Amino acid sequence: MYTFRYSFRIRYADTDQMGYAYYGNYAKYYEIGRVETIRSLGFSYKDFETKLGIMLPVVNLESRFLKPAFYDDHLTVETKIMELPTKMITFHCNIFNENEELINYGIIKLFFVNMTTNKRVSAPELLISKLKPYFD
Amino acid sequence: MYTFRYSFRIRYADTDQMGYAYYGNYAKYYEIGRVETIRSLGFSYKDFETKLGIMLPVVNLESRFLKPAFYDDHLTVETKIMELPTKMITFHCNIFNENEELINYGIIKLFFVNMTTNKRVSAPELLISKLKPYFD
Amino acid sequence: MYTFRYSFRIRYADTDQMGYAYYGNYAKYYEIGRVETIRSLGFSYKDFETKLGIMLPVVNLESRFLKPAFYDDHLTVETKIMELPTKMITFHCNIFNENEELINYGIIKLFFVNMTTNKRVSAPELLISKLKPYFD
Amino acid sequence: MYTFRYSFRIRYADTDQMGYAYYGNYAKYYEIGRVETIRSLGFSYKDFETKLGIMLPVVNLESRFLKPAFYDDHLTVETKIMELPTKMITFHCNIFNENEELINYGIIKLFFVNMTTNKRVSAPELLISKLKPYFD
Repeated sequence: MYTFRYSFRIRYADTDQMGYAYYGNYAKYYEIGRVETIRSLGFSYKDFETKLGIMLPVVNLESRFLKPAFYDDHLTVETKIMELPTKMITFHCNIFNENEELINYGIIKLFFVNMTTNKRVSAPELLISKLKPYFD
Repeated sequence: MYTFRYSFRIRYADTDQMGYAYYGNYAKYYEIGRVETIRSLGFSYKDFETKLGIMLPVVNLESRFLKPAFYDDHLTVETKIMELPTKMITFHCNIFNENEELINYGIIKLFFVNMTTNKRVSAPELLISKLKPYFD
Repeated sequence: MYTFRYSFRIRYADTDQMGYAYYGNYAKYYEIGRVETIRSLGFSYKDFETKLGIMLPVVNLESRFLKPAFYDDHLTVETKIMELPTKMITFHCNIFNENEELINYGIIKLFFVNMTTNKRVSAPELLISKLKPYFD
Repeated sequence: MYTFRYSFRIRYADTDQMGYAYYGNYAKYYEIGRVETIRSLGFSYKDFETKLGIMLPVVNLESRFLKPAFYDDHLTVETKIMELPTKMITFHCNIFNENEELINYGIIKLFFVNMTTNKRVSAPELLISKLKPYFD
């Protein structure tokens, strides 16, 4: 398993009139989590597109809201890759508030798509080789 | 069961560099679906807050992405309430493109929360009375 | 001069914890205004990109906030093209609430950019020909 | 004059189908700039609302787009307070890319509004006292 934690702050733009971070913004927080997780492995999500010609559209999202997040909260997204990706990659994101309470979790599945053929492909070898040490 | 269809358009603001509607925006499309569904029943989501003192935070979201949506697409969100709400209300949202292809569906569960006590309450009688004719 | 009015609704996603439409969302409302204005002339903004190979990045934005907009407000954006576009096109957007009070206005300037060469070009003849009758 | 620099990253959620950060997102980047600038002075924007009962709606925004920002760019917003605030506070925000090229600047004016009376008030003494040393 590979785990990475990254912190970010709730902005005014994120709040709604309940005074909560709007539920639609969590997809963006998961994005931050998975992109920084990939960066922590030594390359960038951007490389998928520009170097490998592969994009990763989201195919499935599940999200559970346990407690609200508030303006200016400094949250931490803990992203876990629990299985070596094959045709699909799954990220498990747990979001914690400053008291280390779990306030939300999400499970996000993405496909690998060749940007030229627009067809699904397997996880690129580059990604597998970076992840493999954590799964032996 | 109660069903309502409402159409909206994908804006440039909604797109990402894949040329797709960003996956995080679908939560907003589901919001449009459920708010217009409630309005079609003869009152407004706003009334929950201002007249009944009840807010509806989202507790769970599931979302499946079947096909991408593109800039300027005129999409239709079909929202179904399949059970009379009790402690929770569940909306099933199907999103269709202009060719009536199902491109995404979402299941969204919300709680009823008394804005004064901040405690969960049952679905207000006003909502039940509007929905009941569709469930007999 | 060419003028077009288009109505839209403030969504929960648009609000912030002041209970106002977040100031950053007005850029999107102006986008709605100019896109629907172009559509009312008989073609679509999308055609600029797909048929003419021209994109229109924003170069300047001015925005004045007179009154707040609130959740579920049904606003109208009145978009004016006051001069025939040359190297640049300028949209004047006035946003009115349901009481026809002016709550915000914006002035947005965009360039025409050839998507292949990435260089600035003049307004396409197609657009000029549609607008000309309103400027004689 | 008081100046503060803060860096942030362009997310996929921020991009549009031109591959640029959508123009409407810059308002959020200015928000990040001014909030972190206030924090650097030793208190938080949140304190305005919760401790002083003052909120700061934006009254005017001017924004100039010189170069696009791209996905995953690590940008820096340099925020300047050039005058001691009175009835209004003005933030000058310059946004630089990783090559220290100025890509955008914005001027944002905000009022101080008492949240109880909903009336405009002068800049709170607490803010003035923090800024004064930089204006002597």
